[in-house]
Amino acid sequence: MRPVSIVGIGQLPVASASALSLRRMGAEAARLAMAEAGVDRVDALMCGNMLASELQGQKHVAALVADEAGLRGIEALEVGAVTASGAGAVRMAYLAVASGQADLAVAVGVERMSDGVAMPAISKALDAEIEVPNGATMISRNAELMALYLERSGAPAHAMVWFAVNAHKNARNNPYALFHKMRVSPQRARTSRVIQSPLRLYDCAPICDGAAAVVLAPTDQARAYTEIPVRILASSVATDRFRIEDREDPLKLEAAQLSGLKAFRQANVNRGDVSFFETHDAFSIMSCLQLEAAGFALPGQGWRLATERKIGIRGPIPITTMGGLKARGHPIGATPVYQICEAVLQLTGRAGKNQVRNATVGLVQSIGGAASTVVTHILGT
Amino acid sequence: MRPVSIVGIGQLPVASASALSLRRMGAEAARLAMAEAGVDRVDALMCGNMLASELQGQKHVAALVADEAGLRGIEALEVGAVTASGAGAVRMAYLAVASGQADLAVAVGVERMSDGVAMPAISKALDAEIEVPNGATMISRNAELMALYLERSGAPAHAMVWFAVNAHKNARNNPYALFHKMRVSPQRARTSRVIQSPLRLYDCAPICDGAAAVVLAPTDQARAYTEIPVRILASSVATDRFRIEDREDPLKLEAAQLSGLKAFRQANVNRGDVSFFETHDAFSIMSCLQLEAAGFALPGQGWRLATERKIGIRGPIPITTMGGLKARGHPIGATPVYQICEAVLQLTGRAGKNQVRNATVGLVQSIGGAASTVVTHILGT
Repeated sequence: MRPVSIVGIGQLPVASASALSLRRMGAEAARLAMAEAGVDRVDALMCGNMLASELQGQKHVAALVADEAGLRGIEALEVGAVTASGAGAVRMAYLAVASGQADLAVAVGVERMSDGVAMPAISKALDAEIEVPNGATMISRNAELMALYLERSGAPAHAMVWFAVNAHKNARNNPYALFHKMRVSPQRARTSRVIQSPLRLYDCAPICDGAAAVVLAPTDQARAYTEIPVRILASSVATDRFRIEDREDPLKLEAAQLSGLKAFRQANVNRGDVSFFETHDAFSIMSCLQLEAAGFALPGQGWRLATERKIGIRGPIPITTMGGLKARGHPIGATPVYQICEAVLQLTGRAGKNQVRNATVGLVQSIGGAASTVVTHILGT
Repeated sequence: MRPVSIVGIGQLPVASASALSLRRMGAEAARLAMAEAGVDRVDALMCGNMLASELQGQKHVAALVADEAGLRGIEALEVGAVTASGAGAVRMAYLAVASGQADLAVAVGVERMSDGVAMPAISKALDAEIEVPNGATMISRNAELMALYLERSGAPAHAMVWFAVNAHKNARNNPYALFHKMRVSPQRARTSRVIQSPLRLYDCAPICDGAAAVVLAPTDQARAYTEIPVRILASSVATDRFRIEDREDPLKLEAAQLSGLKAFRQANVNRGDVSFFETHDAFSIMSCLQLEAAGFALPGQGWRLATERKIGIRGPIPITTMGGLKARGHPIGATPVYQICEAVLQLTGRAGKNQVRNATVGLVQSIGGAASTVVTHILGT
């Protein structure tokens, strides 16, 4: 297997409602990433999207985006695992280059959620035979997990607030973030309206539009495209029992743990080498559980990393360094590609005021559904 | 890149309405393929499905099928290009094994179309901004292509009938085929009801339920799993301009031609080496145009291969050897995996009465949407 590097990234500003159509958003993100790599052509475009089938009445998004981007004739496929779809696209682009089947591949994540009511379509990430008929939604499932966590861990109800405060603080230095101009005090987050108890507004990432892309090339050719390539040290996927009820411990994210272990092994690094961790904070409880699954905290103790400010840019384990899903925004199919782009900014010293010092290893994890699927990437300088 | 072989296949009988649920169908196909390979565990499950989001209200099908199959913890992702989705799943499983990231991968195609009205969801393969608002469906687009073809080529209106007659004849020896007990005379096909002129019923593949799977392993380990592995000599994908109107010649399937050329180059074989060709006859006109795109006939002449019976099992270029989409059935997301399974049967001497003599190289091509995406695989002994 030949090593693979990221040689270009592209991000559209996350927006409540983009002025661009779905296909244009995807094509523009691809164009930006390809421009950064200095290429106008790639062999393959892998696309992550979750909701176009419902919100735009559009399937076949990869071919559509490739056509819109003028990439006539190239390979194009959709790759998906609902909310982790963008990470699936990165993984497939990685496999295409690693295998030698492509010399340049672009992974695009795109989602346009402003075209309709997203929640019913998002719930299709859950079990349509059992969970959805019982009234479950992604929000209700996360509310249950948070309630169970607070009860079992004895964490104070407002502990989770610090995940949002950290994310919003970091977003203020990210021009692509949806909430890059907003100040969020602990008080504001703590008293925000209840969405589903115990989830408050600031525990939940917002619905929005966005697209991001990364260009991948063989590591031994990477410097032909950029002076500062970033190596993909590992790419892995793992699944858990599909429904939370079927898991021995609903608070143990087994897919996160498994894909993390696989990735650490592949990258030949360990937890102590990680400079920062881009968690998938669709809900603040997920950041907390991911920190525990990756071993940065003992079970039931992850919240302390937040309340003790250890997750900040200068802390021992910075997370959601450019705002995370909470404050950069969560255009679902695009989100994991934003995560990867942000890790690249950190590892290339381009994270501005949010630069993590001596960033050499970035851990990026994207969650599909109720953590039934988790995709992990480890990037390195 | 390490060479990859198919070491096990599994097919459910295609049915108008399966007694099994979607997840059970997918899991059962995976189990059959894994049983044939003699394994109860794989590293990855790649899933092709087009319509579950609409017909079952279910996304996240790969993780669901992996869970149902008891494959706890493994990698699982959906891969898609609408009607070619199953071929995308095979390709991603191929890349996972070829790259060295997986030692065993199963590609599953699954579709359960009996749970609702499929046509509106199928139309999402087309351009939702331009084609669908103009009343286009996959059927209307193929009717247009057939009309244009008949007009330009001067082929008699009933020429296409012979594609259906050939497919139905072959399906009679395929116990997994939806129409394996049906006799279809040229007269019956010629006088069948008009669906959209000039398309008649027998120009169109039927809606149905099905699931199929293949297990992939590195070629140098393949004989540990089966005495008769089949090599994947090539795997390729190409796209065309998305809308037919944007193509210089709507009757030239550029994505079929490009992915075919790439595949021939990768496999280091040429057209004359091909023992049989599994075309994607969702509509008979597609078989005709694929034969032309692959160079088996000159433009406007592909129909003659059918009327002159050159596409039969004993002909120079046998196609749809186990019944094709027309008569085996077209459970959309599963279809390309059935095509691959059937090619494996041919190449391992297990095609029974439909056995192509001295079958050594099988060409398999799956079409996404209005041929906006085409996936080509070349298999060999």
